[in-house]
Amino acid sequence: MAVSPWTPPLQSQQWRSYSASAPVPARDPSFAQLTSDDVRFFQGVLGLGGVVTDDDLLAVANTDWMNKYHGKSKLLLRPRTTEQVSRVLAHCHERRLAVVPQGGNSGLVGGSVPLFDEVILNLGAMDRIVSFDEVSGILVCEAGCILEKVDAYLAERGFVFPLDLGAKGSCQIGGNISTNAGGLRLLRYGSLHGNVLGLEVVLADGTVVDTLKTLRKDNTGYDVKQLFVGGEGTLGVVTQAAILTPPKARAVNVALLACASFQDALTAFRLAKQELGEVLSAFEFFDRTCLDLVLKHHSAIRDPLPPEEDGAPPYPFYLLVETAGSNQEHDSAKWDAFLEAASAGEVVQNGTIAQDAGQAAGLWAIREGITESLAKNGVVYKYDFSLPVTDLYRLVEDTQQRIGPLGVAVGYGHLGDGNLHLNVSAPAYSDALRARLEPWVYEWTAQHRGSISAEHGLGQMKPHALRYSKADSAIELMASLKRLLDPRGILNPYKVLPDEADKRDATSKKQQT
Amino acid sequence: MAVSPWTPPLQSQQWRSYSASAPVPARDPSFAQLTSDDVRFFQGVLGLGGVVTDDDLLAVANTDWMNKYHGKSKLLLRPRTTEQVSRVLAHCHERRLAVVPQGGNSGLVGGSVPLFDEVILNLGAMDRIVSFDEVSGILVCEAGCILEKVDAYLAERGFVFPLDLGAKGSCQIGGNISTNAGGLRLLRYGSLHGNVLGLEVVLADGTVVDTLKTLRKDNTGYDVKQLFVGGEGTLGVVTQAAILTPPKARAVNVALLACASFQDALTAFRLAKQELGEVLSAFEFFDRTCLDLVLKHHSAIRDPLPPEEDGAPPYPFYLLVETAGSNQEHDSAKWDAFLEAASAGEVVQNGTIAQDAGQAAGLWAIREGITESLAKNGVVYKYDFSLPVTDLYRLVEDTQQRIGPLGVAVGYGHLGDGNLHLNVSAPAYSDALRARLEPWVYEWTAQHRGSISAEHGLGQMKPHALRYSKADSAIELMASLKRLLDPRGILNPYKVLPDEADKRDATSKKQQT
Repeated sequence: MAVSPWTPPLQSQQWRSYSASAPVPARDPSFAQLTSDDVRFFQGVLGLGGVVTDDDLLAVANTDWMNKYHGKSKLLLRPRTTEQVSRVLAHCHERRLAVVPQGGNSGLVGGSVPLFDEVILNLGAMDRIVSFDEVSGILVCEAGCILEKVDAYLAERGFVFPLDLGAKGSCQIGGNISTNAGGLRLLRYGSLHGNVLGLEVVLADGTVVDTLKTLRKDNTGYDVKQLFVGGEGTLGVVTQAAILTPPKARAVNVALLACASFQDALTAFRLAKQELGEVLSAFEFFDRTCLDLVLKHHSAIRDPLPPEEDGAPPYPFYLLVETAGSNQEHDSAKWDAFLEAASAGEVVQNGTIAQDAGQAAGLWAIREGITESLAKNGVVYKYDFSLPVTDLYRLVEDTQQRIGPLGVAVGYGHLGDGNLHLNVSAPAYSDALRARLEPWVYEWTAQHRGSISAEHGLGQMKPHALRYSKADSAIELMASLKRLLDPRGILNPYKVLPDEADKRDATSKKQQT
Repeated sequence: MAVSPWTPPLQSQQWRSYSASAPVPARDPSFAQLTSDDVRFFQGVLGLGGVVTDDDLLAVANTDWMNKYHGKSKLLLRPRTTEQVSRVLAHCHERRLAVVPQGGNSGLVGGSVPLFDEVILNLGAMDRIVSFDEVSGILVCEAGCILEKVDAYLAERGFVFPLDLGAKGSCQIGGNISTNAGGLRLLRYGSLHGNVLGLEVVLADGTVVDTLKTLRKDNTGYDVKQLFVGGEGTLGVVTQAAILTPPKARAVNVALLACASFQDALTAFRLAKQELGEVLSAFEFFDRTCLDLVLKHHSAIRDPLPPEEDGAPPYPFYLLVETAGSNQEHDSAKWDAFLEAASAGEVVQNGTIAQDAGQAAGLWAIREGITESLAKNGVVYKYDFSLPVTDLYRLVEDTQQRIGPLGVAVGYGHLGDGNLHLNVSAPAYSDALRARLEPWVYEWTAQHRGSISAEHGLGQMKPHALRYSKADSAIELMASLKRLLDPRGILNPYKVLPDEADKRDATSKKQQT
């Protein structure tokens, strides 16, 4: 099972029509226009190399990897130090120039690309590892470090980054923190709200806030850094982070299992928690349609679990289960107990366990290949919900029933975290399909006390839907925090907050009349 | 080894002289005086039973368990619903009446008792468990639930609360969250910033902010609840919480080990992480002086590890190591490997492993008996530092050297978290001893990039010392958040923020002149 790792298909054209259905945006006229004096100022701060006006480079930075969101920025800045970030932002604040902080630009909600002529502040040149303590496992690094490189650095020292996700080859730590990325290891290591120990952040007016403690415990007043974990770059720009990293597991085991129903998948999850206990590190699921798409678009991948009898129908659900422990012998015994329990009641119909790291990577490649396969298959409506696990797959079924022949609904995601990636694949965008999906899909989620964004964030895609998931009181508190920390609203405007989105619509309507 | 569990020695007189050394406080004249109309209003909201003016009951609520801090409140309110909390706070905000939120009142920094006539808002009557999901392990409960009772409720269902501490019999969940309590299980389950999934909080003006999601992942905007985790009741009053609880371990093993040096204790920690791996759940340490104090003040406890040769000196350091796993056989094998590695290099000199739950409780009773033994032994200067583990015990040695015969410095705490409880025991309070200790001990900590409060918080004891541990930029951000959320400063005044403390001093000086 040799498969190549997933890489974002840059500049694919498949998404363009979808973005056209978002509210027609208009530039907020309170922001200043960039002048040649501004550019000269930035050149003075960053040097010529740190100020990019080249059209081709700007085209890439103005567009997300899905080619779904398109900005019109005329300036890309690449600071190398926190002080440079501070001086840039102080100037933008003074001048009322809007700014989009950008990391690896691998997000799914348009959070890291401009809508209009916002200045792009790309952190990629700040990629130093500042320190690593091999006793405590505490890492300090700059925001622009790429996740995969940091993980490789840690692996050499016997540790792992407490976060893993498909885009690891391009995403940056600052972006991971700013989006509170979840990914594949959350089940085991918890969220970044627990693992980020300290941050250095530059506020909209250039103030550098230093909470960069390398201590596991620090109860000295409000934990202000938490606001920037998942702040999506609208409250401040993360420039450095201190992160608690766990020891690298000596024994890692990966299996792909097939179930006859989603109910069986849930039972298998309960058995896995019971028998694999503290070594369980991932419990992912996908349905047969996902696997079919992967098989269709990745010729190197074959069905790892063909039906045992010729002509029998394929299994409808698949589980990717991983353990990470300190003792292979013990973990193998735990796997034996789990698989015995799962087989006894035919909870699991079929399965394969990776015999080495290459096979394990092959199994992961199927799970991680779903996103790309969907992108290759047509247009995709991507949703990312948290739901009570018992309701999780019913949303996929209800969606299919609702859209009928207009599209194909598929479900995959982090079952262990109650996180469903609902995707609807269709040959082309249609108003009819979108009208069937929204706001119905958000209403369904709200009725089941779910979240409209488990891990992707809000960006420019979902501020309008926020009220389906968050109480007005919490949204008002968010808005007052935004006004406090960024009174001129220059940081990543038109995103996250519904009133920012409302403002965009209102401005749009005003300009249209 | 039969020992009784630790309970706070209420109303001991040993601390009074120490509190006298804090800056002489004066009441902020901007706060209103309580009137009979106010009391009638509260009676209308809470009923007669929820409004306490009895002198004896007030005396208890005005005083912390150490009898170190003494308020003069004339009114104790005991709401039963969030709506009542909201109506009470709206009235206090309107009237500018200062309020102290209070849970189990088991803190160590005077955070939950008034300084003057602040109204005490005790959450103890809000003690319902709202819901528990046995699939996800997500609990929703009211703030006044007592930790030990919640843990017992969870244990019956196969789960544990992700927090454990000596005061569990009296502390409340709302107080635990408001102080971001750390305790004995943090090494394994992480901090409450990761485990609290949602909160219901009432702001100073009575606004109820609802972020009470029962989802493991929810990236829908700023994680505003985090401000109240460790906010010490100065930003809002926690009324309900959703908490992720882990499954109860089937196998728990506890050992007490003796080392010949602190360096050996550190080596043992490294070996424990290596060999006990994912099942390691606590790694506590204490020095011989601590054990001597426990033996002196608890006649039922005997030295669990007397020197193997008659007349040999006792061991200078002790470790309490705990594992919690899903398989006793596997965990025993891991313990064998750990103890073999630790014995091989004489890293550990002696040890005992509990054979049953009673013996395990007996070993824990030694560790948890240290606080009470110190309290019985004279006056105590209590400090709570986070430090790099390699520097941890040197502070105790340097402190002893600095104070000479004026007192006895002892060290214990959560070695696995880098958390030292430095305590100085003395027969009586003396200006000379205090002057030797402060600010030197804070300076020492700052020089070693430590934290002046690992887990106890700031309360009224440590706002003055905050600048040793936190950058001005972060303190300014804290202050602006306080002004935003509590513009009249009625919530838990004179605490946490240095400028609140400064204001207290300034008012004091002004009144003195």
